[in-house]
Amino acid sequence: MNVRLDDLPLRDDLRGQTPYGAPQAPLPVALNVNENTHPVPADVADDIVDAIAHALRDVNRYPDREFAELRAGFADYLGQGLTADQIWAGNGSNEVLQHVLQAFAGPGRVGFGFAPTYSMYPLLTRGTGAEWVAGSRGSRFTLDPREAAEQVREVAPDVAFLCAPNNPTGTPLDLEVIEAVYDATDGIVIVDEAYHEFSPHGTPSAVTLLPGRERLAVSRTMSKAFAFAGARVGYLAADPAFIDALRLVRLPYHLSALTQAAASAALRHSAEMLRMVDEIVVQRDRISATLEALGYEPYESGSNFVLFGGVEDPAAVWRALYDRGVLIRDVGIPGHLRVTAGTEDETTAFLDALASLGSRA
Amino acid sequence: MNVRLDDLPLRDDLRGQTPYGAPQAPLPVALNVNENTHPVPADVADDIVDAIAHALRDVNRYPDREFAELRAGFADYLGQGLTADQIWAGNGSNEVLQHVLQAFAGPGRVGFGFAPTYSMYPLLTRGTGAEWVAGSRGSRFTLDPREAAEQVREVAPDVAFLCAPNNPTGTPLDLEVIEAVYDATDGIVIVDEAYHEFSPHGTPSAVTLLPGRERLAVSRTMSKAFAFAGARVGYLAADPAFIDALRLVRLPYHLSALTQAAASAALRHSAEMLRMVDEIVVQRDRISATLEALGYEPYESGSNFVLFGGVEDPAAVWRALYDRGVLIRDVGIPGHLRVTAGTEDETTAFLDALASLGSRA
Repeated sequence: MNVRLDDLPLRDDLRGQTPYGAPQAPLPVALNVNENTHPVPADVADDIVDAIAHALRDVNRYPDREFAELRAGFADYLGQGLTADQIWAGNGSNEVLQHVLQAFAGPGRVGFGFAPTYSMYPLLTRGTGAEWVAGSRGSRFTLDPREAAEQVREVAPDVAFLCAPNNPTGTPLDLEVIEAVYDATDGIVIVDEAYHEFSPHGTPSAVTLLPGRERLAVSRTMSKAFAFAGARVGYLAADPAFIDALRLVRLPYHLSALTQAAASAALRHSAEMLRMVDEIVVQRDRISATLEALGYEPYESGSNFVLFGGVEDPAAVWRALYDRGVLIRDVGIPGHLRVTAGTEDETTAFLDALASLGSRA
Repeated sequence: MNVRLDDLPLRDDLRGQTPYGAPQAPLPVALNVNENTHPVPADVADDIVDAIAHALRDVNRYPDREFAELRAGFADYLGQGLTADQIWAGNGSNEVLQHVLQAFAGPGRVGFGFAPTYSMYPLLTRGTGAEWVAGSRGSRFTLDPREAAEQVREVAPDVAFLCAPNNPTGTPLDLEVIEAVYDATDGIVIVDEAYHEFSPHGTPSAVTLLPGRERLAVSRTMSKAFAFAGARVGYLAADPAFIDALRLVRLPYHLSALTQAAASAALRHSAEMLRMVDEIVVQRDRISATLEALGYEPYESGSNFVLFGGVEDPAAVWRALYDRGVLIRDVGIPGHLRVTAGTEDETTAFLDALASLGSRA
């Protein structure tokens, strides 16, 4: 007899759900999940291997629960006078965000974000038993400080998410919006800067807003700029008291010694990794320009991907590209598709495949 | 102005709590957290480094969300005809247990275990918003099938934990207790076999009870037998439908490509790793015999540690050993202390230090 999920005493709120999952299809050109499609350079990989080999000598022991070296590395990388006691990290920024929600959301509380935004926010929020409320965006998915603050004041969320730049739209976010939202709530405000490194040089980070704002946190990831999606390393900067709150909910020894060693080693090569980012930005802008030439409507992007509208039948275009070996993402916004900027060759493959479907102009 | 934790809008149930934490003291002989004190053998470490170097080539991509190779490896290691679809894994068995609780416990539900037992069970249970109820043990911390079932029937927990052998007491657990507890509840029964490999050869695993018991799960860890505490790898075997439930609550890509590669490589050397276990068991039995000769009361242990009673002032003995460079654990049971079996030298250091405090006989 085969047992079904419904035969088990599952929590009621999980019944009928299906697991999160972008398709993991083995296509030659995968531009669907905003990965950095450039491999880690060989010299950096060598250093990482050396660091891991060293860490393996003590792998029979529990790792440093406080991941002191790694926290110092992140503080140094973020700059702005941050110190290690203002840093947190986890197995991917999803885990970091989960820690925030476990500490500050949970049953009877409310999480909030401006839709469309990163699809994991509602899932993570509801996973802690809290309610999710979606706000709305203005023209071309932008946020206006006054209108954003108004929405937050009305909902009074315990945790408000601001994705900067926003996923899946790529929309940049002005610091004024963050300031206005922060002043409009007594709750936690978390600015998710997963794609910050792809913004124009000199774009100020929400990290600059941390002094005097103890309810503000800024999360980052190594998945994108550091080409480290497979290593699962996210991190966060906030007031030391905020970090203490996360210590209450994290599993002891949640960051493995191998993860700590790999991330610290990669951070030592941040200059080299960020040069890769510049190359990706060139391809992103090429995508935007070509999409426009083809008659689509790309959105301004501060990230490593481009959302574009003017797609009459997104499912059909997605499928036609799939059949040509190119995987992009239907993010569920009617008339839109999203594509990650790849290497020059991958980007060319996408643009050629799309062009072969005929111009919309 | 320094912000304090209480200034933040923390969840009410977390107020006043302090983070979990065994002391991480840099003492020459650390026998406090039941680590395997033997380093991973050099040839195994070399293979792990090679596997990780290979995984780093694609580390810019998200890892296999289904960790197919690793699950096949665990199925193979556990034997009993298990297949990969009956296997789950996480960043340490704590994360695996958290997944079980997220799926089957949560607000309004109840977790249960026979105290004293692993101190993380109540923390993990309450972390999902569920209530924790502690049952009791019989003479010398043993469990009798009828009495255990009676307690479970009365409490009717949604998730019942059975630690086999039990931490922190080392007490072996008969399969009859598991069968009786399973029949006494409609909830989930999870048998935590973190220390199973240290039991006498041929001790049957609860894995043998899985057929026909879809609410039963058996968790394991690589931290102990595989000397892999720093790599954070726990796993679990259960019905495929049970595994599907865990997919609903895990974070996407929760297991890094490096973790998957390291664990798969270590599993390929299980025979060599298990020889190390035999050596540790010899030291454990030496500890028990010597403790008895010194007038203490060691408990029967199927694990890599020994709980011993007859300690008049545990805090004083703990401190005296600490001053002699030996770190053991005061697990909070009056009159008792717990020590991990180390290498032959470490074990000698502990026994000599204890003997130097004078015999109790």
